[in-house]
Amino acid sequence: MKIGVLGGGQLGRMLGLAGIAMGHEFVFYDDGERPCAGPVGEVRPLAELGPLRDLDVLTYEFENVFEAVDRAYRQEVIVAPGRRAIEVSSDRLTEKDYFTSLKIPTARYRPFDNPATFDEAVAQIGYPCVAKTRRFGYDGKGQMVLQGEQDREACLAMAGEKPMVLEAFVPFSREVSLVCTRAANGQKVFYPLVENWHRDGILITTLAPAPGLTPELQEQAEGYVGAIADELAYVGTLAVEFFQIHDELMASEMAPRVHNSGHWTIEGAETSQFENHIRAITGSPLGSTAAIGMSAMFNLIGIQPNPDMILSMPGAHLHWYGKEVREGRKVGHVTVRSDSEADFGRNIAMASAMIAPS
Amino acid sequence: MKIGVLGGGQLGRMLGLAGIAMGHEFVFYDDGERPCAGPVGEVRPLAELGPLRDLDVLTYEFENVFEAVDRAYRQEVIVAPGRRAIEVSSDRLTEKDYFTSLKIPTARYRPFDNPATFDEAVAQIGYPCVAKTRRFGYDGKGQMVLQGEQDREACLAMAGEKPMVLEAFVPFSREVSLVCTRAANGQKVFYPLVENWHRDGILITTLAPAPGLTPELQEQAEGYVGAIADELAYVGTLAVEFFQIHDELMASEMAPRVHNSGHWTIEGAETSQFENHIRAITGSPLGSTAAIGMSAMFNLIGIQPNPDMILSMPGAHLHWYGKEVREGRKVGHVTVRSDSEADFGRNIAMASAMIAPS
Repeated sequence: MKIGVLGGGQLGRMLGLAGIAMGHEFVFYDDGERPCAGPVGEVRPLAELGPLRDLDVLTYEFENVFEAVDRAYRQEVIVAPGRRAIEVSSDRLTEKDYFTSLKIPTARYRPFDNPATFDEAVAQIGYPCVAKTRRFGYDGKGQMVLQGEQDREACLAMAGEKPMVLEAFVPFSREVSLVCTRAANGQKVFYPLVENWHRDGILITTLAPAPGLTPELQEQAEGYVGAIADELAYVGTLAVEFFQIHDELMASEMAPRVHNSGHWTIEGAETSQFENHIRAITGSPLGSTAAIGMSAMFNLIGIQPNPDMILSMPGAHLHWYGKEVREGRKVGHVTVRSDSEADFGRNIAMASAMIAPS
Repeated sequence: MKIGVLGGGQLGRMLGLAGIAMGHEFVFYDDGERPCAGPVGEVRPLAELGPLRDLDVLTYEFENVFEAVDRAYRQEVIVAPGRRAIEVSSDRLTEKDYFTSLKIPTARYRPFDNPATFDEAVAQIGYPCVAKTRRFGYDGKGQMVLQGEQDREACLAMAGEKPMVLEAFVPFSREVSLVCTRAANGQKVFYPLVENWHRDGILITTLAPAPGLTPELQEQAEGYVGAIADELAYVGTLAVEFFQIHDELMASEMAPRVHNSGHWTIEGAETSQFENHIRAITGSPLGSTAAIGMSAMFNLIGIQPNPDMILSMPGAHLHWYGKEVREGRKVGHVTVRSDSEADFGRNIAMASAMIAPS
């Protein structure tokens, strides 16, 4: 099939690599100068998104494309995942309302958009809390933790006139996420829950499966994510990030697309999240999500470590996105796969040292 | 790096998929109309192979390109693997002389190029024997088994004026092959020996590792292939096919490139033969060749089975080369990976039934 992708970043690139292997062709809609996905498909400007008669299906690899998706929809292009998934998840307030409507626990929240509504929100939520822009936030951008009144002015300055949401600070034990793929016929497959480490709001490391993962916790997560996927009649791969507090999960946010915390599946699972997304949107049966040993995924953020040092580690796999290295930019990732727990610990330590931030 | 590849078939395509993931770019030299590797790189006509100042290294994905390699060599382009590898292996007589010079057992052989030399060769080799064209033979083309005098005329008709070689028929128990990658610094990694099934001279199935593989047999194969790789100062992935007769191996032929019997390594080994070839020619350390469970690879030859039937098998991975289906043409392959021996047997049976030749 000929698959259109809104966005031509690294997620598009990895979708392309997975899909070409299966015989598909790709067109990426991206206005960037040298999009990352360029080597694996044709690149077209976003404005060319028209009736798309030469494409079999259109998908997206980042969520801030609601208008384009909406336009495609009105032109009766098959878009997978559908329009509602992106509508719900592209605004933090809608997203949290949506979690609540499905009885999925989430941190208490209140919207605000001026000093008066901010003060009302604080009165309800209390300190410490987290202020987040409702739209276009990613990788920790547009977020701020407020410890007390002393942070009020800085927060209002950051917010400006943007619609915001104020969330209660959750004293979580750790952050985990679940990646799920759902087919049009309702078939759902879930990868094991993974543990995520963030720095300055950016994902730096994923451990898969999450150490100490219990069947009960996995079941809890699958229940929540499965409910979302079914309610949205979702087609493709989606991810939900959770805070874990003791044995309970609280949804933090969802991404209606392949997700950074699922990159380990390329080597660490029987079928990758990218391949399963392609299988889903092309109407094929989904593949096994079983983990093969244990994996640790390390993002390369604004650094280009010596590739030979990484490649000399047993079980290490280097993914380089072909981007220029800039501060704070995700330019690649490394997955280290291990068969035994002993190797896993050693490999994480080695890789962490090697990929230390500059 | 920017990597040039002579040839743009499925091997080039899979090299591209492995290399792009690591951040490399590809240029394929191929005069075909819509080469298979097109979606993963720039395609240039073979005649444009010039001083190649925009490429970092040139490699090849099929061996009948000696002239092009030779031309590149004279223009001081770095070619990996080197010129001698292709020189030795592009002529069956040179290849067998080469095996003999390294004391690697091979079937007795004699060249012939007319009825008189044919009769001399038969007198030395005896029936049954196999006549093969010295150059440009592949996938069983240009080969003929001779049971006795009654096949003489047909053989001479097939041979025409082409230089041929007559080989003793080896009563082998099975056919196996070894894939090896060698780095410029002499580091060598070997995949486990695999068992190959052929039909009409074309590889149809590979079982990896070869069932009942003993450390002694693996060691014997590594000794032979290692000697070849070192003597050629080889850089990249190479494969040698063997006849197994009880516990002894006899070299049948070599391929100075990634090999069909190594396709299972994409899912079935820690590092694929394609990634290791790219690592070798770009001067990076080689990756682990350890098998992950057991794999069976099935070529799709001139048939397009229902992809959904294949994808619904647990552990099955479909590779489709984006070619038009034509009789006798390799258009894709399926690898089925299993963790247990019980699953392996069942999976082979299921996949064989599904991919039955039409």
